[in-house]
Amino acid sequence: MIQLLYEDLVRRTLREDLGRGGDLTSEATIPSGTRGAGTLLVREAGVVAGLEIALLAFRLLDPDVSIEVQVGDGSAVEPATTLARLEGDARCLLAAERTALNFLGHLSGIATTTRSVVDAVEGTGVRIVCTRKTTPGLRALEKYAVRVGGGTNHRTGLDDGILIKDNHRRLAGGVRPAVEGARERAGHMVTIELEVDTLEELREGLSLGVDVFLLDNMGPDLLRQAVEITAGRATLEASGGIIPETVRSIAETGVDLISLGWLTHSARSLDVSLDLKLGR
Amino acid sequence: MIQLLYEDLVRRTLREDLGRGGDLTSEATIPSGTRGAGTLLVREAGVVAGLEIALLAFRLLDPDVSIEVQVGDGSAVEPATTLARLEGDARCLLAAERTALNFLGHLSGIATTTRSVVDAVEGTGVRIVCTRKTTPGLRALEKYAVRVGGGTNHRTGLDDGILIKDNHRRLAGGVRPAVEGARERAGHMVTIELEVDTLEELREGLSLGVDVFLLDNMGPDLLRQAVEITAGRATLEASGGIIPETVRSIAETGVDLISLGWLTHSARSLDVSLDLKLGR
Amino acid sequence: MIQLLYEDLVRRTLREDLGRGGDLTSEATIPSGTRGAGTLLVREAGVVAGLEIALLAFRLLDPDVSIEVQVGDGSAVEPATTLARLEGDARCLLAAERTALNFLGHLSGIATTTRSVVDAVEGTGVRIVCTRKTTPGLRALEKYAVRVGGGTNHRTGLDDGILIKDNHRRLAGGVRPAVEGARERAGHMVTIELEVDTLEELREGLSLGVDVFLLDNMGPDLLRQAVEITAGRATLEASGGIIPETVRSIAETGVDLISLGWLTHSARSLDVSLDLKLGR
Amino acid sequence: MIQLLYEDLVRRTLREDLGRGGDLTSEATIPSGTRGAGTLLVREAGVVAGLEIALLAFRLLDPDVSIEVQVGDGSAVEPATTLARLEGDARCLLAAERTALNFLGHLSGIATTTRSVVDAVEGTGVRIVCTRKTTPGLRALEKYAVRVGGGTNHRTGLDDGILIKDNHRRLAGGVRPAVEGARERAGHMVTIELEVDTLEELREGLSLGVDVFLLDNMGPDLLRQAVEITAGRATLEASGGIIPETVRSIAETGVDLISLGWLTHSARSLDVSLDLKLGR
Amino acid sequence: MIQLLYEDLVRRTLREDLGRGGDLTSEATIPSGTRGAGTLLVREAGVVAGLEIALLAFRLLDPDVSIEVQVGDGSAVEPATTLARLEGDARCLLAAERTALNFLGHLSGIATTTRSVVDAVEGTGVRIVCTRKTTPGLRALEKYAVRVGGGTNHRTGLDDGILIKDNHRRLAGGVRPAVEGARERAGHMVTIELEVDTLEELREGLSLGVDVFLLDNMGPDLLRQAVEITAGRATLEASGGIIPETVRSIAETGVDLISLGWLTHSARSLDVSLDLKLGR
Amino acid sequence: MIQLLYEDLVRRTLREDLGRGGDLTSEATIPSGTRGAGTLLVREAGVVAGLEIALLAFRLLDPDVSIEVQVGDGSAVEPATTLARLEGDARCLLAAERTALNFLGHLSGIATTTRSVVDAVEGTGVRIVCTRKTTPGLRALEKYAVRVGGGTNHRTGLDDGILIKDNHRRLAGGVRPAVEGARERAGHMVTIELEVDTLEELREGLSLGVDVFLLDNMGPDLLRQAVEITAGRATLEASGGIIPETVRSIAETGVDLISLGWLTHSARSLDVSLDLKLGR
Repeated sequence: MIQLLYEDLVRRTLREDLGRGGDLTSEATIPSGTRGAGTLLVREAGVVAGLEIALLAFRLLDPDVSIEVQVGDGSAVEPATTLARLEGDARCLLAAERTALNFLGHLSGIATTTRSVVDAVEGTGVRIVCTRKTTPGLRALEKYAVRVGGGTNHRTGLDDGILIKDNHRRLAGGVRPAVEGARERAGHMVTIELEVDTLEELREGLSLGVDVFLLDNMGPDLLRQAVEITAGRATLEASGGIIPETVRSIAETGVDLISLGWLTHSARSLDVSLDLKLGR
Repeated sequence: MIQLLYEDLVRRTLREDLGRGGDLTSEATIPSGTRGAGTLLVREAGVVAGLEIALLAFRLLDPDVSIEVQVGDGSAVEPATTLARLEGDARCLLAAERTALNFLGHLSGIATTTRSVVDAVEGTGVRIVCTRKTTPGLRALEKYAVRVGGGTNHRTGLDDGILIKDNHRRLAGGVRPAVEGARERAGHMVTIELEVDTLEELREGLSLGVDVFLLDNMGPDLLRQAVEITAGRATLEASGGIIPETVRSIAETGVDLISLGWLTHSARSLDVSLDLKLGR
Repeated sequence: MIQLLYEDLVRRTLREDLGRGGDLTSEATIPSGTRGAGTLLVREAGVVAGLEIALLAFRLLDPDVSIEVQVGDGSAVEPATTLARLEGDARCLLAAERTALNFLGHLSGIATTTRSVVDAVEGTGVRIVCTRKTTPGLRALEKYAVRVGGGTNHRTGLDDGILIKDNHRRLAGGVRPAVEGARERAGHMVTIELEVDTLEELREGLSLGVDVFLLDNMGPDLLRQAVEITAGRATLEASGGIIPETVRSIAETGVDLISLGWLTHSARSLDVSLDLKLGR
Repeated sequence: MIQLLYEDLVRRTLREDLGRGGDLTSEATIPSGTRGAGTLLVREAGVVAGLEIALLAFRLLDPDVSIEVQVGDGSAVEPATTLARLEGDARCLLAAERTALNFLGHLSGIATTTRSVVDAVEGTGVRIVCTRKTTPGLRALEKYAVRVGGGTNHRTGLDDGILIKDNHRRLAGGVRPAVEGARERAGHMVTIELEVDTLEELREGLSLGVDVFLLDNMGPDLLRQAVEITAGRATLEASGGIIPETVRSIAETGVDLISLGWLTHSARSLDVSLDLKLGR
Repeated sequence: MIQLLYEDLVRRTLREDLGRGGDLTSEATIPSGTRGAGTLLVREAGVVAGLEIALLAFRLLDPDVSIEVQVGDGSAVEPATTLARLEGDARCLLAAERTALNFLGHLSGIATTTRSVVDAVEGTGVRIVCTRKTTPGLRALEKYAVRVGGGTNHRTGLDDGILIKDNHRRLAGGVRPAVEGARERAGHMVTIELEVDTLEELREGLSLGVDVFLLDNMGPDLLRQAVEITAGRATLEASGGIIPETVRSIAETGVDLISLGWLTHSARSLDVSLDLKLGR
Repeated sequence: MIQLLYEDLVRRTLREDLGRGGDLTSEATIPSGTRGAGTLLVREAGVVAGLEIALLAFRLLDPDVSIEVQVGDGSAVEPATTLARLEGDARCLLAAERTALNFLGHLSGIATTTRSVVDAVEGTGVRIVCTRKTTPGLRALEKYAVRVGGGTNHRTGLDDGILIKDNHRRLAGGVRPAVEGARERAGHMVTIELEVDTLEELREGLSLGVDVFLLDNMGPDLLRQAVEITAGRATLEASGGIIPETVRSIAETGVDLISLGWLTHSARSLDVSLDLKLGR
């Protein structure tokens, strides 16, 4: 399934690195047919995500590469952990190296960041949720990395859920017409969520029977009041301006979900590398 | 030119958000034909990069959108700076919003990070250089954002320059065969760079007439010795383990270039947004 | 938006007809530069759907074609109704003709079929729903045609809703593990539906708190009992083996939704044509 | 060959169903690594077409799937006939199921319809021919299904034959300039056919040496006269307004070919399904 | 039409030259916004082909370029003939230059070569025909260039005509089964041609009613006998080993067609260039 | 690596030949399942290039084809040399034949032409270099064929080197601003070359420290003076108007490189063929 969904992306990324001419350095310095043996390792503590995607880069360049996975996606690892051992055509391993590492470092960085937040809210019952603030071209993979890190996903995109935000309300002429329009046109599989900035708007939404609310940029006090007002009649998502230092206090207000754009758009890459020597 | 090189990427990214069904929320809540007027703004201080790419997202969805750019790529802006005003079909503006912001925030984040490093080494004559540690699918745009931030680019990929690294040396059987193979096979437009870990390797490389060296993971003292040994006979690039706090001291050793992977793989996204109201 | 989502499909379809050599007949028989004036018309009664897609075929071949739409998507029309008048390069109009008509006839056929079913259940409050039994490559357009005809859409695909069917239950080891697995892993925007074959399974699903049931291949009596048992605690969808002659009786059982595969996979194409003469 | 020509289409169709997120239901309900064993069967009488295309969907998702074909394309089958047995990764089988069935049902529907018409004209020597009224994106496969059903193909598209229709004649200034232009420009491998509405036009075409005529919307009497007038000097194709009830009487007029748009644009899908249980 | 059929190819070719980084030279040396005025000219005598394709390269990079065509496809020109004047963004003109010239030179070279052969057989009534020996990726354009030069086209590819060659005969078990199989399976728009090496094979083919023969590698004497034997009952194509020096003598044997692979695979490129100066 | 970089191109080229309908002739004349055994051979003396690309065509149509390579890329062969033996599905071998031969003949033609030039300058120490005057879509492969023939490559495209030509100088306002702009903006891996038409321009360039010069359209006398003036301070490339007859005399002037557009745009195709018989 990974191959069907992501092979095109990995191919494009390999070509982005190989350009038109291929790997000049390997071709100029390493004899054709040389075998290489490599160790793919993580150099700092973190959560692994994207290993299969990374390995796909090697497989696409050397279909006969032999790969032995040691530690897979979702594992929390210590520095200097070997994820996989590879053996194959040395030029191909070198040509795929950077592509593989770029995927692995990026996705593991997101999983690692997510895990740290999930750990921070442990015991509160709150779910950590990502947003559509993803890196262009990597939406599905980044959402996957969030799941690997213990988070859950909000909408994948504009077509698999309705989220009525400020801009929609303003252009629709208010909360009521927006919510009613949404309910009328949405199929029975589509969930409707409403962004609210104030408790008044929350009350209006509740009176309209809205099932999910995005509480935008509210501090712990307001959130607690929102939880009280809602009294279990709807799902509540806190969002906006939440940072690692405040996420626990937000979680303790009793909201159901906390959504964080920086899980995907600003996670630091995890340090991964490939060590190569002559193979058999 | 932007359109030719990046239109496919922006289209793919729009489709990544629109999915198969399009923007359910806008279609359900905003009457067809509604006009929207928007302000694209930066909410924190930084350097703008990627504005034309972001605007392309709007243009691809509404070819008749009217756009008035106020502040372009390369500008250092204060919080709450308006970059552009847009007027067009409200549903199209909403459907393109997230794609546009994701490009703009990501690339401006890289330009902002780069600028802060370039400022930190001001007066030393050192050039700040990015690497191939880029986000899959965004190599050329991220390299552009580095230039916007005042940095310069290393190789674009594996085919437009030769960089002999540890793995190559090991597989080629040493520095000498690697360098000689490279020189023999490279065309006259291809520059050859050699990664060295020790001063001995640097001396060997100099004796072989290598023009550019990547000095890997050397501290200020070693770098200063390398500069002295080289005495202007080659270009020197410091790389590896350099963080914002140490970049100035590295720059003051007299190297020509400092390369930093985190300019592209770990820059924090800049906070940008779109405010919409009814248009004329 | 249509252009972004469907331009590739229309281009591919035009190329499917033009092949490598283009329109031999027009090039051989009609002088270059000849202007044509055309009337796009429906030759039998029905509901129009896909007009903009059809016109896109003309626009892609002759960007300067002038088009005057008379009757748009969703209109119920009589035989010999003119939908649009076109004037442009005669060779381009001829080369796009068949592609345009194939889209228009196919989608209007689906809208027409859907409308007839929607009319048949009028007053019962039941919604007519399509399935994933669509023509390869045309999923989103066919779902659109169903909406044009007055129906609503079930899931777009496998990733925007959970529908636990017989095969899943069998492989998951029963209803309970399947439903619990789904609930645990699904995000808060994902709706869960369960297919049941018997009233016992319905009761089990209700006890597990399932929100939507697909009642598979049940006759009116069973459906009525299902409605009674459910008593408003869940949404009920009747599916399987329903034909035009029985749809009304199914609708009168009190279910909420009726889903029909033949809306999309077996609707007869509507008869549409293009009449051309010399333009100005 | 099938893989080269149709792999892209099958991949696109799988992605149309899998979307960005993949198969939520299978991932949520069935443990990773579960094996499934399936039976692909036809539930009503008909002619099988497209089995290899359908199986390609499974192969693309699970390259290691084992498949045992029982009944191949072209077979006339009874209800409940098993076409193939499959064993593979359960999640992959489920994710490919709908795509496979949609291809198989659609193409078998066309083959079944074609066969019934071919049977209806048995003994008359008439060939049943399809047209360019095909479903967007499926031209080549539908033409293949027609052949499987015993029909033959007219042109594949605009570039592999010349068919001068009403619109061309009108824009070319008459039959003579159209035919002469076609003859002058066509290579020696290109056949020229002329659409005529009246016997006068047929006579004019014969006098110009035209080899193939499309007799548009003529009833049995006119067709018989056309056959008599032509006296073997040209190939005659009856077309337009022919329905299952009239096709035999048309065939008995002595024409060589009968072309039918509804073979491809309005054939009812054949009912096919996949039954899955736990595999070994 | 050109845009629909060839835009992808021209885009790919532009990207082949622009790579990932765009035109380094223009960006580094010419200020943004500089206007350029150019003259596209042919530097040696020849026949122009591909001008619209070449101009498309400029249009794709600068949609606002203004172009004034002076001499179009099919014109026989003297050295130093101006084909078109262009004015637009200087960087875009420079970036498109090489792509435009490569198309124009290649296709004009084919048209020029074709015209010289067509001229050489003037008065004999023989048609000069190209083959499937074309440059990978350029089949349709090269066939077009042959027509521009006064030649006609054989098959476009494997799917629009039947040509039974040596390899087929050998694998089919002889001429008779091959011809009969072809006749039985081919639709009424498909022409059947048979390659023969000897007059015996020609006689056998004639007795089977074959309509077109490819006479492979026969000298003038044999060809004359073939013409005599055939006596107008079939079309005769001479092929194989014919060079510019012998083409007239072959033409005078009375065959209908002469096919030449070197029209497309070995024609010398025509010398074309672009002269640029500052625009207004 | 070849597969990753060129599979798309070979697929497109196969489809260019197979069209929508596949190989009519093979399907009509050769029974399904027939095995074929083939010999791929060169019919005239030359240098082989592109064999792996050619074989990829067979592999893509018949993944199970067995191939035995006898003579690989870079070999100088006599007429009637067998390059490879193939055995596989007869229809697939026939369907891939022309595509394979077109690649092999085209690239071997370039390698053969290059080798003859390289031989002609033997002993002078001059490198033979290709240009960007390549066939649209085949840039990387043609540059590869030049290397196979013993030549070396100039820039791959506009983004991997700076070459300041007449047009740039004119639009930049002279040599000095062009060279200074280039030096300021180019990264440390980018080489800068300057085209000069006169010795004065060469002197100006040398005074600006330019490293590589393209000496355009200079005869042997001027070139000798240029070599003398330069005195080893820069690399010199002779270009423009050089033909096979003059290349040796140019090489003897002491320049470092000779670049020739006709290596790639006008090399005659090498005569290659496939002989097939029944396989086991």
